[in-house]
Amino acid sequence: MRYFAVMTDRAPDPARRSERARRAILEAALALCRERGYDGTTIEAIAAAAGVGKQTIYRWWPSKGAVIMDALNEAGVTSAAFGDTDDVRADLRKQMTSVVRLMNDSQFAPIYRGIIAATQSDPELAQVLRERLIAPRVAACAARLRRAQQEGQLRPEVNAETLVEVLYGPLYYRLLLPGRRLDRALVDTVLDVVFAGAGLAPGVTVTAGAPAARR
Amino acid sequence: MRYFAVMTDRAPDPARRSERARRAILEAALALCRERGYDGTTIEAIAAAAGVGKQTIYRWWPSKGAVIMDALNEAGVTSAAFGDTDDVRADLRKQMTSVVRLMNDSQFAPIYRGIIAATQSDPELAQVLRERLIAPRVAACAARLRRAQQEGQLRPEVNAETLVEVLYGPLYYRLLLPGRRLDRALVDTVLDVVFAGAGLAPGVTVTAGAPAARR
Repeated sequence: MRYFAVMTDRAPDPARRSERARRAILEAALALCRERGYDGTTIEAIAAAAGVGKQTIYRWWPSKGAVIMDALNEAGVTSAAFGDTDDVRADLRKQMTSVVRLMNDSQFAPIYRGIIAATQSDPELAQVLRERLIAPRVAACAARLRRAQQEGQLRPEVNAETLVEVLYGPLYYRLLLPGRRLDRALVDTVLDVVFAGAGLAPGVTVTAGAPAARR
Repeated sequence: MRYFAVMTDRAPDPARRSERARRAILEAALALCRERGYDGTTIEAIAAAAGVGKQTIYRWWPSKGAVIMDALNEAGVTSAAFGDTDDVRADLRKQMTSVVRLMNDSQFAPIYRGIIAATQSDPELAQVLRERLIAPRVAACAARLRRAQQEGQLRPEVNAETLVEVLYGPLYYRLLLPGRRLDRALVDTVLDVVFAGAGLAPGVTVTAGAPAARR
């Protein structure tokens, strides 16, 4: 480290300077979103707060939405990685619980809700949200579900991408619609219903983990 | 009818005049929302378009949000009433399919999405959305589910309000998040998973309506 420090005393390493600027931009973007909301945040303000020129931002990101999405990605969404043990239900529970934690985080949640709100009337931002934040996570979850289907832990004929929506839909419902507070208990109920079903229709017998069917 | 018409020739019936004004206000509110979005619609513009004074609107509604919520209620959400046959799954399918139709309706959907977007930064509007639109429908669905639980069609230990969120969460997920188009096929997959479960964990045997468990 000392060697590099000496080296950079005269000629600062451009890669390190770039990384410092990049982090300053992402941190400024989040701080401004927290303060003014997504709509009130501008590229100009991010540049000023980060101490860089507007052109530096546009060299790395195509739009304000893209900067803020990357800022969100780095700020916390990375904590919600997928487990890959032999127990798909435990892996889902861990991941979904970390999503609940993020959705209740007073730093993250208002910005995320603000971005989803803005996408309702901004198709370009919706595309950025899809590509940078949602699609990679849906793909990771669907891949985990498909492995569980191959291993006989989940019915193979249920579409994995739709199952992702059944699992996470109730979390987003509580995040975006006024009503009940999003909590970890929701994750357990959703997993209980998705794995065992809520039905007691004639012909379907649940023999463990649930009370016997009533006739 | 003729009798009333004659009666109102001289002294117009105040109740009928009120009803005409009320309908004009609700129609103007929807038309303006379609044109300018929720944020761009004002009480002043609604009053001008309906040919009434602002005070007339405030006599009947406490806020812009309340007018627009009632306008949405009258415009179409009433078509999504709950069936009450002996088959809870058929009743849910019918109701959820009508919700999918509404969520795809080019008149209704952008306004509804705009209102949900606005609630993300407007707690008072969120309260109005909750009270006038969401809570009564959640209550109706939960009541239907509870009857099914009493009749042995659904497991009694699953919380009915949470089950409502598991059923409708995926619909809202597709309405509000960019990605896959909301279609009727989603309703069937959600009902399949909610009634039969997607799991094939050891000890849980699904004996009908699904392939045998793989070991």
